[in-house]
Amino acid sequence: MSSIEMIVAARARLRGHARRTPLLSSPFLNEIAGRRIFVKAECLQHTGSFKFRGGWSALSALEPTVRARGVIAFSSGNHAQGVALAAKLHGVPSVIIMPSDAPKLKIANTRALGAEVVLYDRATQDRDEIGAQLSGERKLTLIKPFDEPQVIAGQGTTGLEIAEQADEEGVKSAEVLVPCGGGGLTSGIALALEASAPTFRVRPCEPDGFDDATRSLASGKIERNATLTGSICDAIITPQPGNITFPIMQRLVGAGIVVSDDDALRAMALAFTRLKIVVEPGGAVALAAALFHGDQVGEENVVVVTSGGNVDADIFAKALELHG
Amino acid sequence: MSSIEMIVAARARLRGHARRTPLLSSPFLNEIAGRRIFVKAECLQHTGSFKFRGGWSALSALEPTVRARGVIAFSSGNHAQGVALAAKLHGVPSVIIMPSDAPKLKIANTRALGAEVVLYDRATQDRDEIGAQLSGERKLTLIKPFDEPQVIAGQGTTGLEIAEQADEEGVKSAEVLVPCGGGGLTSGIALALEASAPTFRVRPCEPDGFDDATRSLASGKIERNATLTGSICDAIITPQPGNITFPIMQRLVGAGIVVSDDDALRAMALAFTRLKIVVEPGGAVALAAALFHGDQVGEENVVVVTSGGNVDADIFAKALELHG
Repeated sequence: MSSIEMIVAARARLRGHARRTPLLSSPFLNEIAGRRIFVKAECLQHTGSFKFRGGWSALSALEPTVRARGVIAFSSGNHAQGVALAAKLHGVPSVIIMPSDAPKLKIANTRALGAEVVLYDRATQDRDEIGAQLSGERKLTLIKPFDEPQVIAGQGTTGLEIAEQADEEGVKSAEVLVPCGGGGLTSGIALALEASAPTFRVRPCEPDGFDDATRSLASGKIERNATLTGSICDAIITPQPGNITFPIMQRLVGAGIVVSDDDALRAMALAFTRLKIVVEPGGAVALAAALFHGDQVGEENVVVVTSGGNVDADIFAKALELHG
Repeated sequence: MSSIEMIVAARARLRGHARRTPLLSSPFLNEIAGRRIFVKAECLQHTGSFKFRGGWSALSALEPTVRARGVIAFSSGNHAQGVALAAKLHGVPSVIIMPSDAPKLKIANTRALGAEVVLYDRATQDRDEIGAQLSGERKLTLIKPFDEPQVIAGQGTTGLEIAEQADEEGVKSAEVLVPCGGGGLTSGIALALEASAPTFRVRPCEPDGFDDATRSLASGKIERNATLTGSICDAIITPQPGNITFPIMQRLVGAGIVVSDDDALRAMALAFTRLKIVVEPGGAVALAAALFHGDQVGEENVVVVTSGGNVDADIFAKALELHG
């Protein structure tokens, strides 16, 4: 369902709306890794994560009369903000269903980006039921976070930029390390690079204990995580790879790399010191893999995606205190 | 002595070496300021500040046999690192004279970037004498931090990029707020914009108590700061505007804007939350001026330069603790 043609079309729709994020580097990071590291800083994307690409891609692909009725999404995090801003900029309503115990700042941000936030009680209410009712009444279109071709196409535009920017740096082949939740970003980048830089190989990166993609790729079938709580890498904790994203990953990406929460915090501190960017824990796992698990990397050049920067000040301060 | 032709020539020499830093924005910052704010993120430049531009420009303009003998600079901070990396990439030696009580990390970084660091004791030794002796023996070329035409030309390339990037955003006129120490960045950007975006007006920004440029512009003659210690904005504390930079500023820039150290810390915390960039106190004064002193700004659109991000973890954590 997803293809390079869809990614190229998404890029055209994103032009002038999504930011072409920079590809950063530091001799100090190269020295730690023992190879050249290039950092695709998607934390600098609008709303602080790559999710804006997928949100914009999906919204802009809708038939105008359908889009005008509005969209709906379930998310307590980056997808919420990406969809909310994309809807606002399209001038259409968005409804975001969020758990009532989501961080107050994220609820406030999503509202401030123009969304109607509907809170539900995780213990007593069924979010799918609330969503279905609202969608039915108002004929809203559901924007899924990763298992949706136009969302994958939007995330894949990151891969087209990586191919161009790596070429500008003279990089002819590389492993591309990507933080992996449901696999939208990972599969989108893999599809983009298959066509635009076929010598590049994507590797999904995950936190210890939430390595569903890594295990699924190893076993050849979709594996679930035993639990969904207990990692600081909240942005990339999903139950299992998607039904659309997994076959793409199976065909195109290499083995997963698993890092600890402490690795992620160390990578955040180094991104602060050496790159001057703010990365959230889940967005730092690929950088952590390149810096601290280089024995699992096979190429002289590594591109890592820092996929988001929406981290609370206290967690960031903790990373600096432990490793700054 | 400095001119748009020199800046255009510097841009050609910097191409492929200096980074074209992104122009960032956030609807949340626009809301605080009550106008559109665009942030030229020079903290993402190589070595974490705009100083690499001036260093590269000066080194690359030297006659090759002169350059091969090496360069020398006095600096405990961003200029040291900018010159050291520019020299390393040119394959020529650099000597940086630093006070022995400079932060250990900055000494270590400057050495790691390939420079020979010569430490001196502020209390008992004269750095100019040490520098003169070394320069004489080895025929090194002194790279001054701001009062040097090729350094000003390098910093001015930031202004050419601002003109292009603002045009891409549809901005037809703006005030351009620039952190101001000796005036190299301020005067370079002003010269660039005079030619490439004449409806844009530069405004220097300084910390309270170290407002030599603001007072000099007001009185029409070079004024000195009463003291050189006591601000957290170390990167932009200089005794007085330069003899080359001041006449350029006098001709081209508007009145200065003065902010408090606490304003700078607040701006750092907002840059963390809303832009996902790391800004040092001195690099944050222009953003602080746009956010908290908007009554002194006359345009609907403001471009602010965040000129550097070389801040110690404890100062950054303090900004987040107070204002995060």
